[in-house]
Amino acid sequence: MRMSELSERSGVAIPTIKFYLREQLLAAGERTSPNQASYSEEHVARLRLVRALLDVGGLTVASAKDVLRAIDDTAMPLDWAFGVAQHALPGVVPDVDEAELEFGTRAVDDVLAANGWEVTSDNPGRATAARVLSAYEKLGETSLVTVLPEYLRAAEIVAEADLSVVETVSSRAEMVQTVVVGTVLGDALFAGLRRIAQERASDIHFPDQGQQA
Amino acid sequence: MRMSELSERSGVAIPTIKFYLREQLLAAGERTSPNQASYSEEHVARLRLVRALLDVGGLTVASAKDVLRAIDDTAMPLDWAFGVAQHALPGVVPDVDEAELEFGTRAVDDVLAANGWEVTSDNPGRATAARVLSAYEKLGETSLVTVLPEYLRAAEIVAEADLSVVETVSSRAEMVQTVVVGTVLGDALFAGLRRIAQERASDIHFPDQGQQA
Repeated sequence: MRMSELSERSGVAIPTIKFYLREQLLAAGERTSPNQASYSEEHVARLRLVRALLDVGGLTVASAKDVLRAIDDTAMPLDWAFGVAQHALPGVVPDVDEAELEFGTRAVDDVLAANGWEVTSDNPGRATAARVLSAYEKLGETSLVTVLPEYLRAAEIVAEADLSVVETVSSRAEMVQTVVVGTVLGDALFAGLRRIAQERASDIHFPDQGQQA
Repeated sequence: MRMSELSERSGVAIPTIKFYLREQLLAAGERTSPNQASYSEEHVARLRLVRALLDVGGLTVASAKDVLRAIDDTAMPLDWAFGVAQHALPGVVPDVDEAELEFGTRAVDDVLAANGWEVTSDNPGRATAARVLSAYEKLGETSLVTVLPEYLRAAEIVAEADLSVVETVSSRAEMVQTVVVGTVLGDALFAGLRRIAQERASDIHFPDQGQQA
């Protein structure tokens, strides 16, 4: 199909498709003449995935590119692909100096030790969690640090659910896409459900507040 | 203090401080001469909060502005302030057409009904979760929808922890900041802990994968 049909089928505007082609988020179509290319069903599917990662998952273009490379590279060991998905954390700026994270890193390591959990020191989640906990401390919100054991218990439930889906997938190619999509978009899914659960918990803990509005 | 000292104390570069002043994320200093202003400890504290919301929480400037307004407006009912924090979801584009969300909205409403939960239909988390679930369906990843009951159980644990911290805070002003910071940065904290829990669950479910790398 031509680019105009690809745009119609996927609901993505032509200038946006051109941007994705330039950024190599989308493979070039098959050249049919010097200034025309033909696109396939695979392009439609890939466009959907790109939109989901960027718009729903909140990834940057650079992060989305890494993630798509992991999906496409069939020679990449499966646990590397898991690693790429793990690093694709939305809204995270990675270059922070170690001293800034000291408070948070200790808090994370303490809760992991208390639960007998061992993880590699370069697990991207460790730095992300440490960064938030250090921010709580700097903002004088240390009471928020006390949520840590309960959050970890909840994270264990979510990770078990994540892994049990992956176990149902048979082929390697499908498994990588499932891991990547489930990891990246799962953060947004959980954030949404947390807002719902907060409204409910708030109605239970502060039953009179709702009437004031 | 002068802007140069404010920059040193907060670790935020002068051009960035000027940008925050222009965007009204930071209140103007007290004019001491036609081209000089003086800044206080409150400015240092506010700069830390702005950085935390933008860099650690991943909020947009517009979202951060709404959130800061809720903290500052002492006349705003407490549950409105909760509502503002609830709407501050990082990486979420809100204008999606309803038909696109049909699959996801039904999936969310079904799991809420199965658990006997009632929430307002305009809870921002409902649309966010629906959007992710609709994306799963469009990407052919419907097996990921099966995580929903476990995610909801985990979200309940997290929301209970969130609310129990809020109950320990006494003044209204402190409570709003705690709710806002804990809601916005809590998403990133949970995303980090989820990566840690995934590594651990992956070691348990796929014990041989680690050796291949």
